Amino acid sequence: MSAPLSADDQLRLFVERIERLEEEKRGVADDIRDTYGEAKSQGYDPKIMRQIVKLRKMEAHARQEMELVLETYKAALGLG
Amino acid sequence: MSAPLSADDQLRLFVERIERLEEEKRGVADDIRDTYGEAKSQGYDPKIMRQIVKLRKMEAHARQEMELVLETYKAALGLG
Repeated sequence: MSAPLSADDQLRLFVERIERLEEEKRGVADDIRDTYGEAKSQGYDPKIMRQIVKLRKMEAHARQEMELVLETYKAALGLG
Repeated sequence: MSAPLSADDQLRLFVERIERLEEEKRGVADDIRDTYGEAKSQGYDPKIMRQIVKLRKMEAHARQEMELVLETYKAALGLG
């Protein structure tokens, strides 16, 4: 049986766990950036791909409504 | 040997890879939030812990300089 942790140790363990997770999150964010870079090197446009990723996250209904509003605003401002 | 991917398939695979990574990133972000929540339930203050995580990321030199500037501003504004 191990001795109970002191409050200081417990706090340190929480902080270290968070730091490991933050590092993991940065690693995944790097992988995402690299994937966009790889796609770009294959001729795909990363900005448009980011829009696609957002659109695919939306419900079809919400996406169609957004596109309708966008078309309305574009027409109002003469963006043909 | 497998057939070469069409451009459409290649694009879809890139987008799906990004979506998996985004999901992974959300999972890690959830783990971070849960860890702060667990620490809070043990009596630790999550806001102060976030400050500690930031301070530990800084070089000692940069942290000391920041703390000195902070003290100067606090004195200037009468925050005792």
